[in-house]
Amino acid sequence: MNKSMSNNTLRDVADVLEARKSAEPDSSYVAKLYDKGLDAILKKVGEEATEVVMAAKDTENGKSPDKIVYEVADLWFHTLVLLAQQNLHPDDVLKELERRFGTSGLVEKASRQ
Amino acid sequence: MNKSMSNNTLRDVADVLEARKSAEPDSSYVAKLYDKGLDAILKKVGEEATEVVMAAKDTENGKSPDKIVYEVADLWFHTLVLLAQQNLHPDDVLKELERRFGTSGLVEKASRQ
Amino acid sequence: MNKSMSNNTLRDVADVLEARKSAEPDSSYVAKLYDKGLDAILKKVGEEATEVVMAAKDTENGKSPDKIVYEVADLWFHTLVLLAQQNLHPDDVLKELERRFGTSGLVEKASRQ
Amino acid sequence: MNKSMSNNTLRDVADVLEARKSAEPDSSYVAKLYDKGLDAILKKVGEEATEVVMAAKDTENGKSPDKIVYEVADLWFHTLVLLAQQNLHPDDVLKELERRFGTSGLVEKASRQ
Repeated sequence: MNKSMSNNTLRDVADVLEARKSAEPDSSYVAKLYDKGLDAILKKVGEEATEVVMAAKDTENGKSPDKIVYEVADLWFHTLVLLAQQNLHPDDVLKELERRFGTSGLVEKASRQ
Repeated sequence: MNKSMSNNTLRDVADVLEARKSAEPDSSYVAKLYDKGLDAILKKVGEEATEVVMAAKDTENGKSPDKIVYEVADLWFHTLVLLAQQNLHPDDVLKELERRFGTSGLVEKASRQ
Repeated sequence: MNKSMSNNTLRDVADVLEARKSAEPDSSYVAKLYDKGLDAILKKVGEEATEVVMAAKDTENGKSPDKIVYEVADLWFHTLVLLAQQNLHPDDVLKELERRFGTSGLVEKASRQ
Repeated sequence: MNKSMSNNTLRDVADVLEARKSAEPDSSYVAKLYDKGLDAILKKVGEEATEVVMAAKDTENGKSPDKIVYEVADLWFHTLVLLAQQNLHPDDVLKELERRFGTSGLVEKASRQ
């Protein structure tokens, strides 16, 4: 994977999701989700979290870890839809992660319980 | 937020999580989670997804969207712990997201149901 | 509600779910779920738990508690499907609840953390 | 299991949960949950649903189904706490289940999607 491309993936997806807001409900999966509203998006977040759990248990029992990657992508994707729908941006979340891991050495905060 | 810093956040967190693998269980929150094992990590993924849902419902009812950002950070963080514990990397997930959104125009795949 | 009828509700539902096992996949919602297998049932359990959470948050914000009742019924129903698919019975779960709450005075066990 | 005892289990648990409402927060696990409030109860519902999923996947891979029984008991228990906290009763949920399964033959409603 080209590094600079991957680096910007979350932002690129966020841009696409922002553009989808003005699309017709029938034009895409995401446009349909926006149209259904917040509860439909949250239901997907809960569902995809369950699928991550199942994929990890399958991997524990000998199946390919590819399914974990696929399901985590699904989960992240639907949280990105949630952020977009709420006029939030993945940078807000990344900033929060940086805050917790410190700005210099990225050391895990001792304050974390 | 400095762009190049934010760009590499997921990888930086992944590096920290990788380093934690050789730490004493009592030395940090993450080292403790590794020591407890996969089920403990998955339980946290399920729990944090629920908290994202509650935070979004609170925002729908007038509370600050900051809580959504905070809870999504928690959810992403615990999926990063899962990836690390399974010897996977956030780049694997980003690559999967790129694959779905196309390499050139990042158009949402029509094949997505 | 007639008391003796309600008393046996979980068992009656279990009987229906047992009978569905020999039905054609297309004959009912439950027969379809059995045909799809365990993961499909578990996905529903996760989804319905999320819907219980959303319904409770809606009630907190002024909506009718009827939605909680409806969503808890959905969640219990899908756990009953899971029990049936695993050749378990709601009596097993009720027995476990009785064990925890004591046999005589139904006092909450002090041992519960 | 004595039949009449098991029949009334959900109601008996509901009675205990109702009585706990006037107890000191430190006096029991449930009293503590009430004191923490709705979000703490919902977090447990989400967590226990995840544990049901994990237990079922473990059983799929050769472990005893006892864990499913145990985790479903935990999930039902916390939904009963939710009902009590919202001044609802398990009978409301049982009535809803009966409504769906018909009053005479307990046939699964064709209307169920």
